[in-house]
Amino acid sequence: MTSPVLHDDVAIAAARLGHWPVRTPLLNSPALDALCGGRIWLKPENLQHTGSFKFRGAMNRLLAIPAEARGGGVVAYSSGNHAQGVARAARLLGMAATIVMPADAPKLKVERTRADGAEVVFYDRLTESRETIAASIAEARGALIVPPFADPLIIAGQGTAGLEAVADLAAMGETADLALVCCGGGGLAGGFAAGSQLPTVIVEPEGYDDVCRSLAAGHILPVENPGPTRCDALQTLRMAEITFATLRHHGATGVAVSEAEVARAVAFAVRELKLVVEPGGAVTLAALLAGRVDVAGRCVIATLSGGNIDAAVLLDCLREAGAL
Amino acid sequence: MTSPVLHDDVAIAAARLGHWPVRTPLLNSPALDALCGGRIWLKPENLQHTGSFKFRGAMNRLLAIPAEARGGGVVAYSSGNHAQGVARAARLLGMAATIVMPADAPKLKVERTRADGAEVVFYDRLTESRETIAASIAEARGALIVPPFADPLIIAGQGTAGLEAVADLAAMGETADLALVCCGGGGLAGGFAAGSQLPTVIVEPEGYDDVCRSLAAGHILPVENPGPTRCDALQTLRMAEITFATLRHHGATGVAVSEAEVARAVAFAVRELKLVVEPGGAVTLAALLAGRVDVAGRCVIATLSGGNIDAAVLLDCLREAGAL
Repeated sequence: MTSPVLHDDVAIAAARLGHWPVRTPLLNSPALDALCGGRIWLKPENLQHTGSFKFRGAMNRLLAIPAEARGGGVVAYSSGNHAQGVARAARLLGMAATIVMPADAPKLKVERTRADGAEVVFYDRLTESRETIAASIAEARGALIVPPFADPLIIAGQGTAGLEAVADLAAMGETADLALVCCGGGGLAGGFAAGSQLPTVIVEPEGYDDVCRSLAAGHILPVENPGPTRCDALQTLRMAEITFATLRHHGATGVAVSEAEVARAVAFAVRELKLVVEPGGAVTLAALLAGRVDVAGRCVIATLSGGNIDAAVLLDCLREAGAL
Repeated sequence: MTSPVLHDDVAIAAARLGHWPVRTPLLNSPALDALCGGRIWLKPENLQHTGSFKFRGAMNRLLAIPAEARGGGVVAYSSGNHAQGVARAARLLGMAATIVMPADAPKLKVERTRADGAEVVFYDRLTESRETIAASIAEARGALIVPPFADPLIIAGQGTAGLEAVADLAAMGETADLALVCCGGGGLAGGFAAGSQLPTVIVEPEGYDDVCRSLAAGHILPVENPGPTRCDALQTLRMAEITFATLRHHGATGVAVSEAEVARAVAFAVRELKLVVEPGGAVTLAALLAGRVDVAGRCVIATLSGGNIDAAVLLDCLREAGAL
């Protein structure tokens, strides 16, 4: 059994990261509290460097590479947010980065990855293996592969968001009862559970609820018959042993939300929170607004995990939610 | 001559306000830095309670009312952001609030003011005096008038944003050379100059650049022939003696931006900052993107003062800026 990531691992990551990440605030919305009957504190990681929590894990992983071993650069595969996190971390540390991205990745994510100086290599999500492509590039260049979630340093880095949230809430004299975390491969979710030490509910889009089902079944189950989803950041087909072990260790459970519920959450974030949140980053808010988790009378920390949304998708969500 | 608001007044306001306001973070965008050649720290007051900095001043003013004198409630006049700030502060302190708003105020601002329990009374911006209406309501109800900017406690409260920004920057080991502040009647601008003790450049929309002209002339000049602007929050027709005195005391100067530059800034905030910023709250960003202020090699704190924008206006800005 793979060792889970524990609170101490996250504390070590926080010390290593220092001031590199944005210490994102905790935001409360009386309108949201009134709608779901709880006290909700949102952790807006869309305001993190590169627009998602992914910078935390990437930077933690890259900082752990000894300076003399950084010459070969790094390789990562990602639909977009991990790509940007790795590209930015590499640029800040003066390392070369190559990112393997699906040909249908959101345009904004591709452009922003390139803007941080990374080389982008495309692949076909249905017929090619991104892991194989990344491995061959890594071998040819002597580069280190930075996986999106199946790595203890990545998970611990993401978990610093949970550590911060709990500390900032304590400074306001409050204590949370529950964490709600957006979940693709479980890197943020596992890290957040470890860093916050809170009972954790992970949220996935319907059709990609493999982590929900895996946690319920007690063993890893893959996504079956994946359809289209606007939550491009959460299209992971199978979680890793280490994220499974970490979430299990912390007793996490999961819920899923519909595409319409996600659109409503994206629109709510614009109107009430003044935040641009991408669909995959808004699944927790979607679960709260749709009453998928009973938070009545409870104090909850919920992640908004990213904000890299194409303007056209934002417009679609606003229209579908009746906000236009 | 009216006494200016000084740094000590802002420090007293910060102590009185305590944890009531959101301590909004400082956000940096490498894309913005690259475009304007400086190091820019944005203070996103669109994430403040009620979606603008106005909560700071309103709460500071209301907290200064002795508990035994709160029974008559408060009256305010505002196109929307001050309305919401006063309504929220009153609700939190258990006071009744009546807000006099122009009949053409953005729908979102009216709805959100009512959502905080305030009574809204409409007036015609071109034919009626909001001051007269507010005064008659105040007299009939024994209520206190809370002006939008012509009040030392309001200005000092807004200034706590500047105090926070400078302290948070110092904690990161940096010092700013300049503050750029969105300006309507000059409450935030004056307070920010006092709180930050930085050389301050105020930014106004073209056609409403009366503060720019007043500071240059050395005496108060009103807006002349005001036309339509999407910066509804900055349509003040004449600044007050106290905001003029405060800005003059701190040596502020001003620049103006066009409607197209504002649209570009609103779109940039969505794409690069993941923030929903209203037109009037984006004028500083507009000035930076348009090169209206020379910030080459300088460290700048710039306010994003509010985010209460109707979805349709947001869409217009995205379209006009070519983001859709």
